[in-house]
Amino acid sequence: MPGEFDLIQRFLACFPRARVPVGPGDDCAVLAPSKGALCVTTDAVVEDVHFTRATFSPADIGHKALAVNLSDLAAMGAVPRWFVCALALPRDFPPRELSALGRGMAALAKAHRIALVGGNFTSAREVSVTLTVTGELPHPPLLRSGARPGDLLYVSGTLGDARLGLQLLQAGVRRGAAVRRQRRPEPRVALGQVAARFASAGMDVSDGLAQDLGHLCAASRVGVVLELDRLPLSPAVRSALGPEGALQGGEDYELLLAVPPPRVQAFERACARAGQAVTRVGVLTRERAWRIRDAEGRPRVTPPGFDHFARSGKQIRPDD
Amino acid sequence: MPGEFDLIQRFLACFPRARVPVGPGDDCAVLAPSKGALCVTTDAVVEDVHFTRATFSPADIGHKALAVNLSDLAAMGAVPRWFVCALALPRDFPPRELSALGRGMAALAKAHRIALVGGNFTSAREVSVTLTVTGELPHPPLLRSGARPGDLLYVSGTLGDARLGLQLLQAGVRRGAAVRRQRRPEPRVALGQVAARFASAGMDVSDGLAQDLGHLCAASRVGVVLELDRLPLSPAVRSALGPEGALQGGEDYELLLAVPPPRVQAFERACARAGQAVTRVGVLTRERAWRIRDAEGRPRVTPPGFDHFARSGKQIRPDD
Repeated sequence: MPGEFDLIQRFLACFPRARVPVGPGDDCAVLAPSKGALCVTTDAVVEDVHFTRATFSPADIGHKALAVNLSDLAAMGAVPRWFVCALALPRDFPPRELSALGRGMAALAKAHRIALVGGNFTSAREVSVTLTVTGELPHPPLLRSGARPGDLLYVSGTLGDARLGLQLLQAGVRRGAAVRRQRRPEPRVALGQVAARFASAGMDVSDGLAQDLGHLCAASRVGVVLELDRLPLSPAVRSALGPEGALQGGEDYELLLAVPPPRVQAFERACARAGQAVTRVGVLTRERAWRIRDAEGRPRVTPPGFDHFARSGKQIRPDD
Repeated sequence: MPGEFDLIQRFLACFPRARVPVGPGDDCAVLAPSKGALCVTTDAVVEDVHFTRATFSPADIGHKALAVNLSDLAAMGAVPRWFVCALALPRDFPPRELSALGRGMAALAKAHRIALVGGNFTSAREVSVTLTVTGELPHPPLLRSGARPGDLLYVSGTLGDARLGLQLLQAGVRRGAAVRRQRRPEPRVALGQVAARFASAGMDVSDGLAQDLGHLCAASRVGVVLELDRLPLSPAVRSALGPEGALQGGEDYELLLAVPPPRVQAFERACARAGQAVTRVGVLTRERAWRIRDAEGRPRVTPPGFDHFARSGKQIRPDD
């Protein structure tokens, strides 16, 4: 096995040198004070929990580790700024796979103009990648707690694809759009910045819309009428999972947004101008309950296993 | 096993609520812009790499995870501000041990007035605690690269105790000062802030003085004359390891500082006023070589296994 120093050089070589007062190489990185408030989040991807080495390439792992963190910045409407990367790798992890992991992460970092400013290597039995990412806020942050009764509910993109992708990977399928959504989620960073100008509340959909909508409703002390037939589904998800399955699908990394009625038109126009697909899927209510309706407005039975105000508990969320 | 939400509540309950615009509970924490430049570092402690559950209590693990990160802030002269904590725990990790881990971490956080602002839980086969900590700089940072020939070299505290403590733990000893230094290192945060006013360069001693002095010399492009008999050793280390063993001992978490001769008196006075023990152990030289001398100034043979300009490569350090 090459020395740890060689591994570090190999990893860093994937990234451009950060334009900061002190970058990787000293005990700490040194960063100029931020202009706006700073958003910070930390999230990890762990072998055999969030991915397997049989179904994810090293570049997929590097991409996804950064994507899940950027999605949290997107949810606040933040502009990505810098991140640090703690890698835990088995001693026999091949150096060329480390380079591939770094390249997968660096490509996404470049796309979102976020700088790697430091990190840490340690050996471990299983591969894990723990990132801490920060962004600056040009607007007040989008919080989960800001929604009011009457606000309209939007989701971005399509739901359920990553869940379908996981099922396909487990069944041996290695290609296709759904598999790509599972391996290479695209955080909605640009949409978050647009939404922060209009929305009253927002969060990312990482544990399935059913759970995460429960979090938003609990934090904002509202209920919801959800129009099941309006859920944006790809044809593959519509036939494989249906809307009930898509509601429970995890790892969508789409945004869930509440928009007050007077701002709805301007919000939809701004999304269209920015090329960001959003779909209105319901309305928030004073009555703190879930109601699910079909296209004709008829009540639908709650799908089995549907946890109304579920607590995912994955992120540290004391206020749920 | 209790739900993840209960684990999170249990962990957060160990810490005071952070006085920040948005604390744990949303997709990101939100922090007011820092006044000075921000230092950031990330470091992990991993089961069976940095500790074993047989020889470290959960509180020891929590303490050490934060201590090793605070030591990096100390090395820059930074004032600790906030941190995030990513925990990976086996599914059968007992809730009461999680509370103990949190209390061990929270006690050290309180002592250094650093706020937990967010985190993440994930399951994993082995326990690991990955922290990202930040501090603000009231002065320009202490870098590794600032030392000049003629600067005097200081180390804080005593060296080798943590290495001896590890040997004792491996031999079944569970008590005593050296064991405590291994389990509960005390980061030299206050000294770092004093030193930043006087020193030309600094770093923490985490991989043994021999290696880390090599890093400082390499970054500053200087050599060193080290006075072996001046190394500050506890009586236990002096008899068990001797100065050569202490030089190679890891996990000291002391500070290594270079001070220009005109500032030496003021530096020593300031350290004495602050109750911080520092010992002059050598002088930096233009000639980029190591020389080790005994009390009478006679050259000493380099101890075996002594890596002159070693690269530990543990932290990401491209500039070594």
